[in-house]
Amino acid sequence: MSGRRTTRARVTRIDVDGVASSNEDQLAVEEPLEVRVNGKSFSVTMRTPGDDFDLVAGFLVSEGVVWAQEQIASLRYCSGVDEAGLQTFNVIDAQLSADTAPPDVSLERHIYTSSSCGICGTASIDAVHKAAHFGQVEPVSIDHSVVAGLPDALREQQRVFDRTGGTHAAGLFTASGELLCLREDVGRHNAVDKVVGWALREGRLPLRSTVLQVSGRASFELVQKAHMAGIPALSSVSAPSSLAVEHALSAGMTLVGFNRDGRFTVFAA
Amino acid sequence: MSGRRTTRARVTRIDVDGVASSNEDQLAVEEPLEVRVNGKSFSVTMRTPGDDFDLVAGFLVSEGVVWAQEQIASLRYCSGVDEAGLQTFNVIDAQLSADTAPPDVSLERHIYTSSSCGICGTASIDAVHKAAHFGQVEPVSIDHSVVAGLPDALREQQRVFDRTGGTHAAGLFTASGELLCLREDVGRHNAVDKVVGWALREGRLPLRSTVLQVSGRASFELVQKAHMAGIPALSSVSAPSSLAVEHALSAGMTLVGFNRDGRFTVFAA
Repeated sequence: MSGRRTTRARVTRIDVDGVASSNEDQLAVEEPLEVRVNGKSFSVTMRTPGDDFDLVAGFLVSEGVVWAQEQIASLRYCSGVDEAGLQTFNVIDAQLSADTAPPDVSLERHIYTSSSCGICGTASIDAVHKAAHFGQVEPVSIDHSVVAGLPDALREQQRVFDRTGGTHAAGLFTASGELLCLREDVGRHNAVDKVVGWALREGRLPLRSTVLQVSGRASFELVQKAHMAGIPALSSVSAPSSLAVEHALSAGMTLVGFNRDGRFTVFAA
Repeated sequence: MSGRRTTRARVTRIDVDGVASSNEDQLAVEEPLEVRVNGKSFSVTMRTPGDDFDLVAGFLVSEGVVWAQEQIASLRYCSGVDEAGLQTFNVIDAQLSADTAPPDVSLERHIYTSSSCGICGTASIDAVHKAAHFGQVEPVSIDHSVVAGLPDALREQQRVFDRTGGTHAAGLFTASGELLCLREDVGRHNAVDKVVGWALREGRLPLRSTVLQVSGRASFELVQKAHMAGIPALSSVSAPSSLAVEHALSAGMTLVGFNRDGRFTVFAA
């Protein structure tokens, strides 16, 4: 099934003296997933199998295609077999409700260039604002001790990372620090899409009064995904980019970086 | 110009006791770059400005469009202005030589799904092999002490990371550990494309007898990019994915992970 998140491999470890030893190691699985919408191919992403329906649902939220549970009529694995005749579980078709417009595939790849300006960060942010169904986020107030505790709370639950050291994680918490949902993936953006997709399928969008903790850096894309889901606060253990900060400010979001060892930096609030 | 890699921001630091202080911090710049080929829009990527021509050239190598210096007749910034009338330097047009086929934009996004099988990692690897002009890599032999020294050698030269903590790096080294080229970017894949593009523009492809050290994890995509450039060895400070290992094995590449503190793990050789 789609739950094969780790696999074993024979490896050779080299120690500080150059001495080699043969070992077995566990790897995070990476496999392509083709997303179809109403039967038409929409996107291919490399992901860690597991929570695939959440991933597809969250991806459709990030792309501005859906924002409510009832807009996805069904999610199912298409029959696709590999050369050995085995079902790959790597193609999912999302059937949208009759009143939900399917994405325009031909336009999608040009989202940034449709602006009248040359192409710049401002145009990218404008494009997200236009697609953001929930608009500006509702500000949230979170105690500093809750914020500072998020990285450890995330790390404690990273089961695939424990075995492989090879996955990112995203965890959604209440403003009082209660974990609502944690997802892992070899791709940072996929881990966030899986969390957002879980919330959509639970009928919880927009995600008011929550904070999303991520294991890596905060890029524009991660801030965009949080904004599309109505998440008012994003915290990362590392640095944000310039455009991540600009977009967080324009969306009314709180953006925290370098959240480590009980300290953190607020880049937008 | 295109060299604006960092920008200043006002931030609030919260210490372990919850005490706030106002500070200035430096952020890695993230801006969109539109890549055009022969005047037609091909792709948009979020990147750190700087070494943009290298980035475009390397991206075209990764996509299998070019593999030799003379296939790119010219690279130039298109005139594109933002709302204030300032040139954005965020659109680059690559003119290919007359005998180089431009990429098929309509096919490009379906590269993985053109296989007869359902869609799986094997099909993804097959697609890379079909596009890899240089074929299997030529194996390289590197002393373990050289391999173990690569992360520190990379770290010493990460100028943007020093200021921001927010960029990935890729460094190309000879088999004896001499640094040939280092590039930084908010995106791991961009840092590698910039190194490969530098090599293409220097007429150095395929990159025989070299090793590429990257600052993050080793995904399928990074192994693919190294393979397309003929780089025989890839070393990362963290974990590879299952598909990264499979592809390295099938391409004849050496793949090293968890390269830290003088120790490392060989996942493929």
